Amino acid sequence: MNYCSYCASTVSLVIPEGDNLPRYVCDECGFIHYQNPKIVAGCIPMWNDKILLCRRAIEPRYGKWTLPAGFMENGETVAQAAARETVEEARARVVDLQLYGLFNIPHVNQVYIMFRGDLETPDFSAGPESLDVRLMTEHEIPWDELAFPVVRRTLTLFLEDRRRGSFGNHMFDIAPMKK
Amino acid sequence: MNYCSYCASTVSLVIPEGDNLPRYVCDECGFIHYQNPKIVAGCIPMWNDKILLCRRAIEPRYGKWTLPAGFMENGETVAQAAARETVEEARARVVDLQLYGLFNIPHVNQVYIMFRGDLETPDFSAGPESLDVRLMTEHEIPWDELAFPVVRRTLTLFLEDRRRGSFGNHMFDIAPMKK
Repeated sequence: MNYCSYCASTVSLVIPEGDNLPRYVCDECGFIHYQNPKIVAGCIPMWNDKILLCRRAIEPRYGKWTLPAGFMENGETVAQAAARETVEEARARVVDLQLYGLFNIPHVNQVYIMFRGDLETPDFSAGPESLDVRLMTEHEIPWDELAFPVVRRTLTLFLEDRRRGSFGNHMFDIAPMKK
Repeated sequence: MNYCSYCASTVSLVIPEGDNLPRYVCDECGFIHYQNPKIVAGCIPMWNDKILLCRRAIEPRYGKWTLPAGFMENGETVAQAAARETVEEARARVVDLQLYGLFNIPHVNQVYIMFRGDLETPDFSAGPESLDVRLMTEHEIPWDELAFPVVRRTLTLFLEDRRRGSFGNHMFDIAPMKK
């Protein structure tokens, strides 16, 4: 951030009075431009014993497999965001969304909020951000070709819970990916 | 938003190619300035059968009672944010934070994420944003003097769960306050 989005003056990174963290503050109008983490809302879409996975058509991690997920928009609920992302990426409708996991990724200022949901019908197809979309059994999941650690963690927890027959709510912190 | 925070040129509210929502896009450099919901992280601090409440020393809702809560910062986890807010507003340390509720407030683009936590010791005092901080039994809670609907909803759910002896995870949408 270089300029104030309200008055176009320069900003400086300073600690405002009464605060304890540096913020971008406008040198002219004094507006404080806070920067906060973003929510990524996602879904485990289920159809009988299968899970819907998407192969990414965009960077980062082009060609890798992921669960439908994306940045939450203003004016929607987290569950609405997860359902919308499932429509956009997999052209699939999920119903009866249940909160499943909260995953902190503090090194990229993101919080993933993941739901479990049932496909309304077994209809799906690749949206513009996906190369391919498939319903997979546990043994078909391409563990070495998953896009992100949070996807691996979510799927691992889900499969463990399903074997146990009990779905809890999970909260984990995700460390940076190894280069 | 009037100006690009990267190059200080004017911005226009347009739907970028491949998108389906209007965004602030720089007329010169083309940078897309996304705006997303913010997370408010909060806590139900417990000491035996009592709950720690804070009386607000700031607007909005100056003088009303609330649970410690505030905007999550970059670089922290949601639980760290809830614990930090409890220190800042009530000078109290909470331990063993358990995820308790997720409350969507889409009309103000906020998601409250609330935890239950035990006070490490019964030590607390008013931070700069609080007029007063008190440990209250269920019957001492000033229901008509609570700051926000999300605080009322969180306390109501918590007390119901405690009577039942079982704390679930809750997810609710909060409608606008009546004028």
